This record gives sequence, structure tokens and C-alpha cells, in this order.
Amino acid sequence: MPSYRAPVEDTLFLLNDVLDYASHAELPGFEEATPDLVEAILTEGGKFAAEIAQPLNLSGDQEGCKRSEDGTVTPPKGFKAAYDAFCEGGWGTLSADPEYGGQGLPHTLATAFNEYLSSANMAFAMYPGLTAGAIAAITLHGSDEQKALYLPKMIAGTWTGTMNLTEPHCGTDLGLLRTKAVPQADGSYKISGTKIFISAGEHDMSENIVHLVIARIEGAPAGTKGISLFVVPKFLPDADGNPGERNGVSCGALEHKMGIHGNATCVMNYDGATGWLVGEENKGLRAMFTMMNEARLGVAVQGLAQSEVAYQNAVAYAKDRLQGRALTGTKEADKAADPIIVHPDIRRILMQIRSFNIGARALVLWTALHGDKAHRSPDEKARQHSEDMMGLMTPVLKGVLTDTGFANAVNAQQVFGGHGYIAEWGMDQFVRDARIAMIYEGANGIQALDLVGRKLPANGGRAVMALFNEVKEFGKANKDDDALKAFIQPLKTGVDHLQQATMWFMQNGMKNPDNAGAGSTDYMHLFGLVAIGYMWAKIAKVINAKLADGSASNEAELKAMLAFGTFYMERLMPETAAHLARISSGCETMMSVEADLF
Amino acid sequence: MPSYRAPVEDTLFLLNDVLDYASHAELPGFEEATPDLVEAILTEGGKFAAEIAQPLNLSGDQEGCKRSEDGTVTPPKGFKAAYDAFCEGGWGTLSADPEYGGQGLPHTLATAFNEYLSSANMAFAMYPGLTAGAIAAITLHGSDEQKALYLPKMIAGTWTGTMNLTEPHCGTDLGLLRTKAVPQADGSYKISGTKIFISAGEHDMSENIVHLVIARIEGAPAGTKGISLFVVPKFLPDADGNPGERNGVSCGALEHKMGIHGNATCVMNYDGATGWLVGEENKGLRAMFTMMNEARLGVAVQGLAQSEVAYQNAVAYAKDRLQGRALTGTKEADKAADPIIVHPDIRRILMQIRSFNIGARALVLWTALHGDKAHRSPDEKARQHSEDMMGLMTPVLKGVLTDTGFANAVNAQQVFGGHGYIAEWGMDQFVRDARIAMIYEGANGIQALDLVGRKLPANGGRAVMALFNEVKEFGKANKDDDALKAFIQPLKTGVDHLQQATMWFMQNGMKNPDNAGAGSTDYMHLFGLVAIGYMWAKIAKVINAKLADGSASNEAELKAMLAFGTFYMERLMPETAAHLARISSGCETMMSVEADLF
Repeated sequence: MPSYRAPVEDTLFLLNDVLDYASHAELPGFEEATPDLVEAILTEGGKFAAEIAQPLNLSGDQEGCKRSEDGTVTPPKGFKAAYDAFCEGGWGTLSADPEYGGQGLPHTLATAFNEYLSSANMAFAMYPGLTAGAIAAITLHGSDEQKALYLPKMIAGTWTGTMNLTEPHCGTDLGLLRTKAVPQADGSYKISGTKIFISAGEHDMSENIVHLVIARIEGAPAGTKGISLFVVPKFLPDADGNPGERNGVSCGALEHKMGIHGNATCVMNYDGATGWLVGEENKGLRAMFTMMNEARLGVAVQGLAQSEVAYQNAVAYAKDRLQGRALTGTKEADKAADPIIVHPDIRRILMQIRSFNIGARALVLWTALHGDKAHRSPDEKARQHSEDMMGLMTPVLKGVLTDTGFANAVNAQQVFGGHGYIAEWGMDQFVRDARIAMIYEGANGIQALDLVGRKLPANGGRAVMALFNEVKEFGKANKDDDALKAFIQPLKTGVDHLQQATMWFMQNGMKNPDNAGAGSTDYMHLFGLVAIGYMWAKIAKVINAKLADGSASNEAELKAMLAFGTFYMERLMPETAAHLARISSGCETMMSVEADLF
Repeated sequence: MPSYRAPVEDTLFLLNDVLDYASHAELPGFEEATPDLVEAILTEGGKFAAEIAQPLNLSGDQEGCKRSEDGTVTPPKGFKAAYDAFCEGGWGTLSADPEYGGQGLPHTLATAFNEYLSSANMAFAMYPGLTAGAIAAITLHGSDEQKALYLPKMIAGTWTGTMNLTEPHCGTDLGLLRTKAVPQADGSYKISGTKIFISAGEHDMSENIVHLVIARIEGAPAGTKGISLFVVPKFLPDADGNPGERNGVSCGALEHKMGIHGNATCVMNYDGATGWLVGEENKGLRAMFTMMNEARLGVAVQGLAQSEVAYQNAVAYAKDRLQGRALTGTKEADKAADPIIVHPDIRRILMQIRSFNIGARALVLWTALHGDKAHRSPDEKARQHSEDMMGLMTPVLKGVLTDTGFANAVNAQQVFGGHGYIAEWGMDQFVRDARIAMIYEGANGIQALDLVGRKLPANGGRAVMALFNEVKEFGKANKDDDALKAFIQPLKTGVDHLQQATMWFMQNGMKNPDNAGAGSTDYMHLFGLVAIGYMWAKIAKVINAKLADGSASNEAELKAMLAFGTFYMERLMPETAAHLARISSGCETMMSVEADLF
């Protein structure tokens, strides 16, 4: 049976020692969130994940969700009780607005907890995860009445939420959507159409489900300029704000999918359902976009989360499984064979995963802190800079952490040999669950285009130039530090490659946008490698200082972490050159073939 | 619904034009296998795969195999009838020994057909696939009586076969096995023990199942030196050689696994089952090893096969799915959106897969031809050279084609967006089925160790030096061919990297074997990239000649193929430098971390 333990010490080390969490103390919400409180919350959160959510992961995968003929949907056994415990523990309230019952703590904290919950049970974590997305939409775009009606219940978790975008013929290209909204005399709308791939679309875990739906108001312009956002509750709130009459929305079918079986992925039928406009008419797509940074960061965390839990189980297996002898001679003569962790090729796999996970976790927290600063800093310039960093890093994190998180889960599965292919060991679930994160909330190819086509050129390249400067300043400031050489030099090479690639796009992407498209995915991964490499250099500097002044009580652990970082530099960073070569080869070859000759 | 069409023209082009199949005409078995006959067989074989086996692929995955309480196992609906058609068509007899009812045709031909069958339905293809392995074992090591008793029925397919190696506590390290064989007065043995992961272990598709089982004869030495091979039929043959009394072997359970649901993967219980020694006592492991080249080539082909069928379906979807507009402006104004194949990032995925598939198919056929020559050439030196090439390339093909084949299936799935995650589209099955090929028949890490630890140093490096010379001679002979420059130069760089890596192992692997282990997987992939790059250079030379002399009726197709090859050189070959960098970083970092600090 797979197991999980939340990496709370790693999170705290990154927050406190590497990212200097304490320096944010004067921001709203941070004053209360002292390092002690953060530690207490993450420790409790880790326990909730490991003790309540994780034991339901494998059984939830095997049992799946069931739809009855009347359209009701039952999640796997234990999910409802675990969700009740989630609400009782207030886990959905961490960073929510205190005006509506939230705790107003930093979103960074919620992000760290989300990693634990997604590692423990990704399908379960999606129920409150989707609710958080819906809360954000109403918070940003809803009227005061809508906020008062919906937010307290959604933040408490008694009502859950969903996002309804995709239709059978339109996923990436939302301009093609057909769901209709017909205005009614009372100011409401009648919504009709079919939405697919709706996570947590129907279930019995909450009193009500608040669907956020994009649709086209009768007579609205074609394409993306005629899309509006609506709130469509499963039960229409009565005069007291309690669930009343059943609305005309129902689950028509559950999708049969590769993974996340514990989450009810629904085909939702809107049959003249009553909905209310959220925000302005025809500004629905913009409303969706403002929420996307947060949602995409959440999906990035899912990639990291599956990578982490797969890693933990692979390590346990590698220490336990006896098979063959070390290449350098027997290590455990009293056993029939050595544990397979003695083999370099097994260590290669494990170190590749963990060296990525630590660096990726640092980058997630770095970005989440910028997210908090973007919302909470009193200084406009600081807010803008943090907004820039958040916007720039979001597609990188979403694309790279989910692509690599999946690849890592596959590698971790490989450690198990044939047992990795057998359901009861749980490794194939991590792979199948991780796979969706590369697809939803904007497939990773779309993330790459967002990075290259939108985030790079925005404001004359202000964000990317600021980041490059920050990394180069770090390099300059530490260039004579011999103890950091193994980090600074590969980082410098990586940044050079990234800058050359950026330059290449500026010179060739304008001439022919296909040149940008042809290199976008490689660029995203090149960017991710360098950004995580930068995190590792920062981590290494902190560790070196701790080791040098003898202040550390965990010297062996710190030295091991340094080895993981060195591994990252030696074994992952060399990929930057290959990305640059691919980017520089341009679009000519790939555009030269007629579609019929593929 | 997924579809499949066998790439017969590609196979024929590679065999006839690139690999000069006709020049082998004087080898036994090749005289009858004229190009015309080859075309006829592959065309019919492609039809069998596409029309009989493929329609059962998705349904077989969804239905799976069922075990009744009495231990009988029922494969998915339609499998038995399809298997009867397979036997009637004589598809298992292609390259089998004519003395026992085979057609004696080149094994290369059977290999090409196996690709089609595995693309169409991998789980189905494994039933005859395992039989072929068992046939090889009996052919190579069985007594004349055993051959006469078993081979005709197994070649005809009325009896199927299995390979029983793995036990719960021993997979890679067969020295740990516990299954016991007790000699009986009549010369037979009583076999007792439990074997797991036994593909096609129990089913009702054939009259009898011939289990080949490794076990330890009572009193035999510990470790791998005490392993013997036995034949244990499900029904003991009676005096006429027909299935008689039920033997003491049964299926204790079916494994619940990630994919290949249509194949019955069994826990097999041997409870004093009657078996007969195959070959010599305590030489069982050697007997297994002699069969492994063939079996591993078969698994390599599965990787290619899943990559090919996933590609075909991704192309069809990319041409059909309308979403967004081309970056360079609307391409199909009369439609609501452009087909997604206009997008460079989609083409990147598709070309990456197809450029790999064509080159990998060439390398499979090149290796299979060497396999045929190793068995059939009248010239001892030629046999030895072909044996060298076959031995060298086997772990490379097994490791690289299955790793990359899986990655390609994942990429092809990505083209479908959310639909790729939904079972009915069939893409997730390709991914799940492809996954096992990286694990069984020696996990890919073991292939890499076999390459670096055994195949490279064998006979003073004779095989690898011969191959390097062949590739370099090709480079030299074509260095002034401007039309081939885009192929020769990257190939030269790749060979240089491969030679540097080889040299690095020679210098550092002796000093510390962990240096070899730490770089083995990268070396295997570096080797594969260069070997496939060599195939592409050969292909490009042939195409250039055809285009230059105007002899080609399919100029557009050839130019497109050249573009796929160019893509390979531009986009896949840059990886060789990254592999070299990783190899050269050695084992120090990864061995420095104590197991407890992972």
C-alpha cells in the first residue's frame, strides 16, 4: 500500500531560510501568520492530508464515482466524511477573505497545504480546489449581493463550486462556445447547453453546488467577445439564502477517464437553468482570465504533488527491495541480496526526481509569495513587480511542473519493476492522476504559447528583463564564492542559453510567428530549468552559510540536500543547450510538410 | 474510436530501398521470400492486424480477462475467434522451422508483421508472442522428442506457450528463485512454487498451454548456478501426443494492472506439477539468455508499435479538430476555426513521433536482418559480425524504443487535449499498454547495464568498434555530398559524442563500476539516437538519389519523408550533447548520499 508524509520541514526550510518569509511580516495577513503559526498550520495540514485524505486515495481510484439513473452522483466511500472533516478543520478558509468567514492568511500558506492535499489524494483535493476557483471568480467579479449570498457558504465549504467552460467542440478555443443565455424579465437568465469535463460537477458531499458557467447571451457577438459569465446554483437559494428549488442543471453522464477516478468529471446539461450574470455582459472571458493565474498555479502544484508522493514511495521500495548486488561488491552480506538503492541507476532516478521537487517547491513558494505581494503590498511598484513575476512564472510552472511531474511519476514507477504496473502498489495511479495536469486548465502547449506570445512581450519585456537581472545580479554577487561554483557556473550557462533563445524569438518571431510557435514548448522548459536552477543556487548559498557557521543541527541532511542540488546542476541543467538548439532550428522544416503527408 | 492502418509501404521502402533486402537472396529462407512475396505477406498481414485484431483492442481493454472460481480464465470477447483466424492464416508459422510445420521465411518478415499486430492489439499479440518465445526455448534447448511433441502444435498455434521466470521476491535477480523441482523415478520432475506476472498464463484460446518454467532442482547450488529449465504442460500429453490428464498447475489470480488488460497476466501456482527438464541441469539461466535477444527485440517492436498507432490517431485528430486560427493568419476561412495541424506546436509533436518511428523501424529491420544473417549466413565471419550487431543493438532497441515509444504515446495523447484523457478515444490505452514494455523482459535500466557492462566490452569491444567504423565510413564516403549535409554533420557530432562517452567509460568505469552504472541509461539513449540517426542518413541518401534521377512516382511523399528526417537531425540529435554531459558527471554526487537521507 502506498504511503505519504507531508514534507513540512522542506517547506519550512524554503519559506524561512531561503525565501525569507519573515521579511514579509508587515503585509496584511502576514502579521498574524508568524513562523510559529505557519509551522503549526502546515504540521496540522500535513496530518490531515496523510491521515484523512491519503487512506482514501487508492480505494477511491479503484471504486470511482457512480451516477444513478436519476442523475445523482456518489463519490467513493469515505469521501463525504473526509470532506466534512476538511470543512470542520477550516482547511478551505485559510487564505479566504475574513469578511466572508475566511482567515485571511497568506495564499502562500494555502498553496503549501494544497501540495500536501494533492499528494495525498488528488481526486479528493479537486473538490475544494474547484470551489476555490469559483470563490475567486465571485470575489473578483460578483456583485455585493452575490458575494454575501455565496461566499460565506463556499468558504465554509457547505456549498462547493465548479467551473464550466469546455463544450464538446470547444476546449482551447472558447470563442466557439454555443451555450446560450436568454435574459428574463426578473434580471436572471435561462441557460441552455452542454458542458463537458466538469470536475466535481455533481456529488452529494455538499448542500449545494455553485456552477460558474460561461455562455453567450442571445444576440451577443460571435467569438470570444460575446461570452458572459453566470452563476448557476444546483439548488436555487430561497429568501433566507438556503438551498430551495432544484435548478434545471443535471449531470448527464460521468466521463470514463484515465485517472482521478475519485473526482466526478461530469457532462453537465443546462436545460433552461436559472442563472445570474457575474460581472459585465460579454466580459466573461476576461473574468475567466483573471482567475487563471491562481488556478494554473494550483495545477502546477498537482504536478509537483504527484512527483513528491511517487518519489516517497519509490524511495521506500528502493530501500526495501533486495535484488542483486552492488556493482562495487556486496553491501549487505547478511541478506540474500542488496537493497536496490545501492545501484547508481536507481539513485539516478531518485535524485532526478527529488532534485526537481525541492527546486520546484521553492519556485512555487517564490511565485506564491509574489502573488501575495501583488495583492497585499502597500507599494504600487512592488505590487506591479510581483504581478509581473507571478504572470511570467505561471505558465512556466503549470507547463514544466506538470510535464516533469508526470515524467517523474513514470520514473518512480520504474523503480518498482513489474510491481509498478500492478494496481495494488499504487504507482500507476500516481502516473494516471498526474497525466491530467498536463492537459487541463490550458494544455501545456497553450501555456508555452502564453509564455512566448503574451508574457514575454508584455510591457516591452519588463517582466522577463527584471527576472534576468535578478538572476544575473545573484550570479555577480556570488561569482567569487568558490563553495558555490558548482551552482553559479551552470546557472550562468543556463541564463546565457535562455537569453539567446529570448533574443532568437525577438529576431525571428516577429518575422514569422510560426518561429515562436515552433520553439515555444522548448522555451518554456528552458525557462523552467533556469528558474529552478536559480532557486537551487539560492538554496545552496543558504546551506553553505549554515554549514560554515556551524549553526545547523542537521548537518547531514543539509549536505545531502546540497548533493541533490549538485545533481540538478550536473544532470538537469545540460538540457538547456538542447532546448536552445531546437528553438534555433526554427519552424521551416515542420511547416514544410503538407497536412496530408503526415 | 481509434483506428489503425499498417504502414506497409514504409516497411517495404526500408527493406527494399534502404536495407537492400534483395542482396540477401542467397540466404536460406530468403530465396522463396522474393520482394513480391514479401509485399504480399505484409499486405495480408497488415489487413489481418487492422481488420481482425484492431477492432478488439479498445473493447478488450475495457472488458479485460475474467477468472472463475475454478481457476479458468476467459479473455475478452472475440479474442478466441481472432486467435483461431490467426492460426488458420498461419501467422505464427512465418519464420518457424519447416521441419515442424513452419514456413522458414526470414525472421525479419515476422518482425515486420509483429509490429503491425502489436499496433493493432498489443494484448492480443502477446498470446502468440509468448508462444514464439517458448518455441525458441524448445528449439534451442529441447530434446528431439520434446521438439517432436511440442513444436508442431505450438507452431500451428493449437497449443500456446508461456515463460515462467518471476517470483514475488525475485524479478531481475533470478538467483533468488525458490520454485523447486523434485526428480522422479521416471525421469520427470515434480515442480512446486509460485510464479507471478505470467502473460497468457491461463485462457481458453488453445487446446493446451505449454509452460516453460525455471526452478531449482532439489540440492542444486544456490544462486543462478542452480537454475534449470522445465517444460510443464497444462494438460499432460497422452501416448498420442494429445492433451490428456490435467497437470498440477493453475492460475491462482489475475493481476490487476495498468494496461494490456486483454492479456491474462496470471499468478501461476505449481503444486507438484509434472515437468520435464529442457536442456541440461543447472543450465537454465543460460537457456533463458539465449532466447532473450529475440524476445527483447519483440518488446522493442511493441514500443515502436504503440508509438505508430498513437501517431496515426493523433494525425487524424489534428486534421479533424477545429480550434483557433493559425498564428500566421486564417487558413480555412470557411470553417469556424482552423484544424489544429496548422499549429507549429502540434506539428512539433507529430514530427517528433514520426521522425522517430521511421528511423526506429529502419533500425529494427536492420537488426532483424542481422539476426537472420547470424543464423543463416554460410560465411562464419559474416555470421559472427551479424551476431555482434544483433547483440549490441538488442538492449539499445529494447530500452530506447520502449522509453521513447511510451513518451511518444503520451505526446500523441496530448494532441487530443481533454479527449485524450477519456477512455473512448483510445489514446490512454496506448499510453497504458506502452508502459509495460519499459518494464518487462528486463527493465530498461537492466538493458542499459547489459549494454554498458556486457555488450560494450565483449570481445575487446569488437562489436562497437565495427559499428563505429561502419557509421564513420558512411560519413566519410558522403562528406562531400552537399545534399546530405543536413544529415552527415549532425550524425558526425553524434558519433563524436558517443565515442567520447565510450572512452569515458573505458577510462572511468574500470576504476569504479559505479561510474558505468551512473551513466548507463544516458549511454543507451545516446547510442539509440546515433544509431537511428545513422538510419536516417542512409534513408536520406536513398531519397536524394531517387529525387535526383527522377525515378520516383511519389516525389511529394519522399520530400516529406526527407523533412521528417531533417526534423530528426535538427530536434532529436541535439540531445546527444546532454547525454554526454550527464555521463561525464560520473557517479560521485549520486553515491555521496546515504540511503537514509533520500
